[in-house]
Amino acid sequence: MGAHPYVPASLDLPGYVPLRLTQLEILGAYLGTSLFVLVAVWLLSGRCRRLSGTDRLLMCWWAFTGLTHILIEGPFVFTPDFFTKTNPNFFEKEYSKGDSRYVARDTATVTVEGITAVLKGPASLLAVYAIASRKSYSHILQFAVCLGQLYGCIVYFTTAYLDGFNFWASPFYFWAYFIGANSSWVVIPLLIATRSWKRICAAIHQSEKIKTK
Amino acid sequence: MGAHPYVPASLDLPGYVPLRLTQLEILGAYLGTSLFVLVAVWLLSGRCRRLSGTDRLLMCWWAFTGLTHILIEGPFVFTPDFFTKTNPNFFEKEYSKGDSRYVARDTATVTVEGITAVLKGPASLLAVYAIASRKSYSHILQFAVCLGQLYGCIVYFTTAYLDGFNFWASPFYFWAYFIGANSSWVVIPLLIATRSWKRICAAIHQSEKIKTK
Repeated sequence: MGAHPYVPASLDLPGYVPLRLTQLEILGAYLGTSLFVLVAVWLLSGRCRRLSGTDRLLMCWWAFTGLTHILIEGPFVFTPDFFTKTNPNFFEKEYSKGDSRYVARDTATVTVEGITAVLKGPASLLAVYAIASRKSYSHILQFAVCLGQLYGCIVYFTTAYLDGFNFWASPFYFWAYFIGANSSWVVIPLLIATRSWKRICAAIHQSEKIKTK
Repeated sequence: MGAHPYVPASLDLPGYVPLRLTQLEILGAYLGTSLFVLVAVWLLSGRCRRLSGTDRLLMCWWAFTGLTHILIEGPFVFTPDFFTKTNPNFFEKEYSKGDSRYVARDTATVTVEGITAVLKGPASLLAVYAIASRKSYSHILQFAVCLGQLYGCIVYFTTAYLDGFNFWASPFYFWAYFIGANSSWVVIPLLIATRSWKRICAAIHQSEKIKTK
């Protein structure tokens, strides 16, 4: 027991295989790939007619978050013994230094990640398409995914608090991973949800006015 | 240990005070009060001008679900030792026969109930007002609360499944409480969310058309 970098050290992980890549390699690969996706979507979206800069930025975000949900969170959800794998594509081996509930297979964490990978991931990619082709469901879809992300974050942070709030290897991992990495999924969904809420209210207001004319 | 009606019998509940009311009395009080709320809101909403029958039914539902969230789920969330109380207004003493995670203070269950009592409860009551006064945010608000209720149900059922799916005193309590009582909060939010989604898409479609004219 304890032959792993996670907290608590008493956490029993039979068959644990240590990370083969350094932190820099793991984060570099993730951030590098993400940057590639962001730039690619930005350039491609420039070819769509009549899209504002905000729409194009939103397409970049939805592509990035959708792929993260599906490719990073998906394998974790469906591989309960991922910490015994030599395959380096389990980002959560590294992330668990910031929240050992991943490697400990905490029920609430797995549930939130499951909903994220299975529902919010594909819905995020659908949002990229919806914005590009100016679908009338674009705003309500974005609002729905944002609300799901916010609900997921509230469950994620509240269960951590109720379960003792002590799952990180050091204050660095608390701030960089547990708080830092997740904060984008609080701030950005709040901004997008607010924008879509306003846009929807304006459209409903307009259609009510037409009706009562 | 085991001097309580919940499963597993090994669940330790120090200071447990048995229910003083019969099942019939508890359910009768809840259903009777709910019926009173439904009828009262139906009658009062008849005095609002230009409300359709559907709008009035929705007001009844939002008043009922909002009061349930706040008055039934609220006290449970903020009274961790509710099972030691003689005060009979803890519905969850009875409901725990269908899901002992309530009385066992399971983290995910308390978290979902907390979000429900604190956010969805007041938002549901706001929906009653929004429908009555035909606010432009009425549809997006109803959609948001429905989505929260559905997300909560997914977390609730998935965590039960992952944690062993064995928290009910008998098949009767499984079907009547765990499945039956919760099914309204799956079916009705699905219907309302679909309705609001369609209404919002129609309004956005209309406003896009006006813009491009």
